[in-house]
Amino acid sequence: MMLSIISGINVTLGKNPFKMSELIKEFNDYRQKMNDVILSKNNLVMKRLWNLDTNTYEEGALDKKTKEMLGLVASMVLRCDDCIKYHLGKSHELGVTTDEMYEIFAVANIVGGTIVIPHTRRAAEYWEELHL
Amino acid sequence: MMLSIISGINVTLGKNPFKMSELIKEFNDYRQKMNDVILSKNNLVMKRLWNLDTNTYEEGALDKKTKEMLGLVASMVLRCDDCIKYHLGKSHELGVTTDEMYEIFAVANIVGGTIVIPHTRRAAEYWEELHL
Amino acid sequence: MMLSIISGINVTLGKNPFKMSELIKEFNDYRQKMNDVILSKNNLVMKRLWNLDTNTYEEGALDKKTKEMLGLVASMVLRCDDCIKYHLGKSHELGVTTDEMYEIFAVANIVGGTIVIPHTRRAAEYWEELHL
Amino acid sequence: MMLSIISGINVTLGKNPFKMSELIKEFNDYRQKMNDVILSKNNLVMKRLWNLDTNTYEEGALDKKTKEMLGLVASMVLRCDDCIKYHLGKSHELGVTTDEMYEIFAVANIVGGTIVIPHTRRAAEYWEELHL
Amino acid sequence: MMLSIISGINVTLGKNPFKMSELIKEFNDYRQKMNDVILSKNNLVMKRLWNLDTNTYEEGALDKKTKEMLGLVASMVLRCDDCIKYHLGKSHELGVTTDEMYEIFAVANIVGGTIVIPHTRRAAEYWEELHL
Amino acid sequence: MMLSIISGINVTLGKNPFKMSELIKEFNDYRQKMNDVILSKNNLVMKRLWNLDTNTYEEGALDKKTKEMLGLVASMVLRCDDCIKYHLGKSHELGVTTDEMYEIFAVANIVGGTIVIPHTRRAAEYWEELHL
Repeated sequence: MMLSIISGINVTLGKNPFKMSELIKEFNDYRQKMNDVILSKNNLVMKRLWNLDTNTYEEGALDKKTKEMLGLVASMVLRCDDCIKYHLGKSHELGVTTDEMYEIFAVANIVGGTIVIPHTRRAAEYWEELHL
Repeated sequence: MMLSIISGINVTLGKNPFKMSELIKEFNDYRQKMNDVILSKNNLVMKRLWNLDTNTYEEGALDKKTKEMLGLVASMVLRCDDCIKYHLGKSHELGVTTDEMYEIFAVANIVGGTIVIPHTRRAAEYWEELHL
Repeated sequence: MMLSIISGINVTLGKNPFKMSELIKEFNDYRQKMNDVILSKNNLVMKRLWNLDTNTYEEGALDKKTKEMLGLVASMVLRCDDCIKYHLGKSHELGVTTDEMYEIFAVANIVGGTIVIPHTRRAAEYWEELHL
Repeated sequence: MMLSIISGINVTLGKNPFKMSELIKEFNDYRQKMNDVILSKNNLVMKRLWNLDTNTYEEGALDKKTKEMLGLVASMVLRCDDCIKYHLGKSHELGVTTDEMYEIFAVANIVGGTIVIPHTRRAAEYWEELHL
Repeated sequence: MMLSIISGINVTLGKNPFKMSELIKEFNDYRQKMNDVILSKNNLVMKRLWNLDTNTYEEGALDKKTKEMLGLVASMVLRCDDCIKYHLGKSHELGVTTDEMYEIFAVANIVGGTIVIPHTRRAAEYWEELHL
Repeated sequence: MMLSIISGINVTLGKNPFKMSELIKEFNDYRQKMNDVILSKNNLVMKRLWNLDTNTYEEGALDKKTKEMLGLVASMVLRCDDCIKYHLGKSHELGVTTDEMYEIFAVANIVGGTIVIPHTRRAAEYWEELHL
């Protein structure tokens, strides 16, 4: 019973290791749930923007992996944790290695400065989770 | 007893539906509590800025509803979740409809890009809460 | 002949009154010229985003004038001078008055802070130009 | 037992006073833990940036206290809560008074606008914690 | 006659040394001219915000020089060139030395990242002008 | 004689085609001139940050071309025109094609929104110049 309660807790701080495996699931569940709410309102601009967002990362002159890395570094310098998590997940699926990932982190931190560090900490945490 | 403990939990992730009704109350309580702390320090610039903030949204050449919508879209593109919640509450009081609200969301997402989407998710969640 | 040379000068500083009437024309000309270059490259995402941008400000649950004001205040707090100019032009066409405009400026300055002031100066200059 | 579970909860909302004393410890613990993860990857740019970050705040033509205040106000207008907490801690160690601190808050709120207010609330909360 | 034309040219690029002495004068003239336009519209919020802006930098628990340095670093990380110029002028009046100034630049560049460098170039140029 | 005067003019607006070939030269000259001024002040943090900036884009787990593209998209969403120009120049040297470039533009515009469009116009102009 405690566990079912804990599953609703914001685990960002990650103090209790046994909760950490929930981090990816919670992110995905909340994202899906709220996407459903938003799309149910039938705002055409929102729907089309989301389709366009998907198209942006499709194979083209640049391959998918490069595009995901571009989306990730852009999200990092703009300091959007949820956007970062999304692109981390996709980058992992597309085979980005940890050495490559930390070079992306380095570009983001140099271009965007030390204010990117706290977001890099959360990105590093999520990246570890993706490799469990 | 569990419930009273849970009421202190950050419910942003909204996994447990029965907690969701706490979202608005917690936002307002924390906001009020910390405003009291800040104002108790008697920093004149802070006090006057807050008064001025109130004046900004008063009826003028533009009506209150329009001004709240302006404050909301500005808060969305600047990606300030608490500012968004505040203006969502005021917009709801002033009769903004859900169709109107999603057109504001659309402007914010087009102007500010897909990094606004995670904030739109949290805004959509809070907007639903306001209609319970 | 001097005048034709001067027409190529960045008149942002507006020191020479006789050049000011060029401000709106130059903005529109450069905008059109570069839009043509960009669209000629046939990047589908860019084309579709621009169409979507147009759709965003069409009459809907909110009227066009309100939507332009939303686009304007969003551009102001994000401090995008060219975006501001574009929405100032549209707002002027749609009958926004100077009193209304300065209330939009006020919201932008309160939400976004004194860093918005230099952009407000350039916005005020362009707004004057639109009324010559 | 409840307490050990609660210690992992994000106490940002600060509804349960008895949890508040955890705020500083949790910030420091998570920061240290993730720094260790990041540094373990041996990305040279990240390591050197972090060393450089430390050097930046060392005594020079400006004293340490002034430099921490500069780092704090920069973090506030960029709205980086974790950066703010870090510099609040350092400022407290270096003897910044509450009156001085609220004048820094005032500069940040005037320059950065009312979107800085929610971050000022969390800064004020953390500042109180530092004085318990 | 050529010179009077040149006086209207944006000298930001600073290619012609003999124009550089105009940089400070042009900044101040345009600032004053547009402030007059804005204030003539009698928007109360704008007027009060500007008064409050002045109050913010007055002697208090922190001295004027420290406050100007705070305003400067905040303007730098927010990358507002005109705000930077204004605070550079005030800092110069209040006796900030070049060594101190470059330590402020260093904090801004570390916190805000390499995107602050182009603004630092323009700040360095203006700082040189202030010492002619 | 007119030409030598014109060479000092900010050609951003690009109204006079014969001036356009100056765009790249002016950018590079001003950049070099101000870098010299800044480095002459011997601020150690600034010097080391600039060295680190160079290291960041060196061949590693990711190749140089990918890193330049990452630096470019980060600069675009942060809307730093001079940073964009620098990375456009480097990307051109490293063989990025126009189709690839416009896919980077597309990612930047989708992630960062329509406020990136004016910067994309200036980027497109500079990219054309690089191919003259």
